[in-house]
Amino acid sequence: MEKVCFGIDIGGTAVKVGLFDTTGNLISKWDFETIRTGNGKDILKDAANFILSKMDEMQLTKDQVLGVGVGIPGPVKDNGEVLELANLGLGYFNIEEEMINLTGLRVRAGNDANVAALGECWVGGGKGYQNMVLVTLGTGVGGGIVLHGSLLAGSNGAAGEIGHIYVNDKETKTCGCGKIGCLEQYASATGIVRLAKQILTESTDSSTMRTYPELSAKTVFDCAKAGDKLALETVEKACYYLGVALAHISQVVDPDVFVIGGGVSKAGEIITETTKKYYNQYVMDALKNKEFKLATLGNDAGIYGAAKLIIA
Amino acid sequence: MEKVCFGIDIGGTAVKVGLFDTTGNLISKWDFETIRTGNGKDILKDAANFILSKMDEMQLTKDQVLGVGVGIPGPVKDNGEVLELANLGLGYFNIEEEMINLTGLRVRAGNDANVAALGECWVGGGKGYQNMVLVTLGTGVGGGIVLHGSLLAGSNGAAGEIGHIYVNDKETKTCGCGKIGCLEQYASATGIVRLAKQILTESTDSSTMRTYPELSAKTVFDCAKAGDKLALETVEKACYYLGVALAHISQVVDPDVFVIGGGVSKAGEIITETTKKYYNQYVMDALKNKEFKLATLGNDAGIYGAAKLIIA
Repeated sequence: MEKVCFGIDIGGTAVKVGLFDTTGNLISKWDFETIRTGNGKDILKDAANFILSKMDEMQLTKDQVLGVGVGIPGPVKDNGEVLELANLGLGYFNIEEEMINLTGLRVRAGNDANVAALGECWVGGGKGYQNMVLVTLGTGVGGGIVLHGSLLAGSNGAAGEIGHIYVNDKETKTCGCGKIGCLEQYASATGIVRLAKQILTESTDSSTMRTYPELSAKTVFDCAKAGDKLALETVEKACYYLGVALAHISQVVDPDVFVIGGGVSKAGEIITETTKKYYNQYVMDALKNKEFKLATLGNDAGIYGAAKLIIA
Repeated sequence: MEKVCFGIDIGGTAVKVGLFDTTGNLISKWDFETIRTGNGKDILKDAANFILSKMDEMQLTKDQVLGVGVGIPGPVKDNGEVLELANLGLGYFNIEEEMINLTGLRVRAGNDANVAALGECWVGGGKGYQNMVLVTLGTGVGGGIVLHGSLLAGSNGAAGEIGHIYVNDKETKTCGCGKIGCLEQYASATGIVRLAKQILTESTDSSTMRTYPELSAKTVFDCAKAGDKLALETVEKACYYLGVALAHISQVVDPDVFVIGGGVSKAGEIITETTKKYYNQYVMDALKNKEFKLATLGNDAGIYGAAKLIIA
């Protein structure tokens, strides 16, 4: 039988698991609640038991399973070391060693945002490219960098922390990370709503955004697409900061393509086109006119990328 | 006999050549003027003939020579493709293929600033580290990025173009690259002198810098070390911009160490310490307190790194 592998995406509320063939076809997927009993390590035991029971149920032998890739919400070093996973209440451990002990299978692990980038590069928006930067615009701004087809973890597992690139020296409000003027403060869903509210407060112009009792990033983009002036101004501002940050990234790693994902990216080409316009203003000629694409795997990017950790 | 390799650093005025053993010991080095006859490709023929004549003279057989590494002043892709070398009057060519044809030896090539980074990582300021960023503060600001011990070339050979990271939205003067507000406008030797002149013009305070008929970056640092207030202000400003740019780089690649080289770095720890102070203000907690070191190979970094391209 053809070889297969598992990709696990461990989140604060749910654990997603995918079974893949070696060419990136998803054979089956499952999800279950993140277990909260005991200390955080019960999560790994629970995930390992799930994998073993599925192997049993599907009559998969250890020879057929190439291994298990795992994405977790925190920095992971190349050797599997995790310094801390505050979200899951875990201190220092080596996730690869623990999962190998629990499953008897080959295990590779990475940060969830980085792993999602690997998934998008394998069979998603970055398919066909070797050097890719994924930017995930969700509640926060995350990212991941793929170079020569492999994930860049960095010295502390903190490579690709794009959301905390400093982009605004006029900011007065502190970011969740403790710094001031991070990209996440403008290009995340919450950041876009904050920008819109500022623009609405500073202007007396009419705007359909004023008719919504509660603004969302989706509303801002919908109003912008309908031609609302202040909504368009909000989008320009958010994409200006994103364009500047992607320009910085390009001067450092010179990728083939930028892939924009996360909930906010559902707004579509208005984001890629507006961001590209500002990006081109802030990079050297040799780096202009990169590809800007939308992510295509949605919430499954993590399980795809986790599986690719094993196949790479 | 022990295996050896050649490292060539091709510059606009001189070609440097080093012969190395596989552990990074420099056995011999030579330099000669960059030939300007014919079209730019005569430079490669001249360098190839030099290597072959040295092999003959030193009775080195092709079996003993692992190959030839070459650094050139322009972007080089991973496959040896060079789109243009304006300085040397060359259009598109594949430098690796041409040098293989000319020498019959194995050839690898890279951008000179990137190659210098590889040299510093091998046996210089970054020795012992796998992930290193070199910043070269000279007439301009260059750089190179080493990840997992290998050079990062990027999609267009333009990775590590640190000097053109955008750092100042208040700048009005255009950088040599055509953009506005590049790091090179503040942290290069000429940039530091420009900052000093601005500060001297805007202030009525006394300064020993005013007693020099012509200012140089060295004078600025000498005055700063002697406690001159306006010189210290200049150094703070240049290192602020450098610190911000290195913070951006860290958020992207999370290196182990930053190595500062180039003529300006001769000022010593005042640069690494002042830059580190600002760097720490603009990175996430997980990226604070990286190592900041001075380059140690000086003008030889290029030949060391070129040789390492072959040994890697």
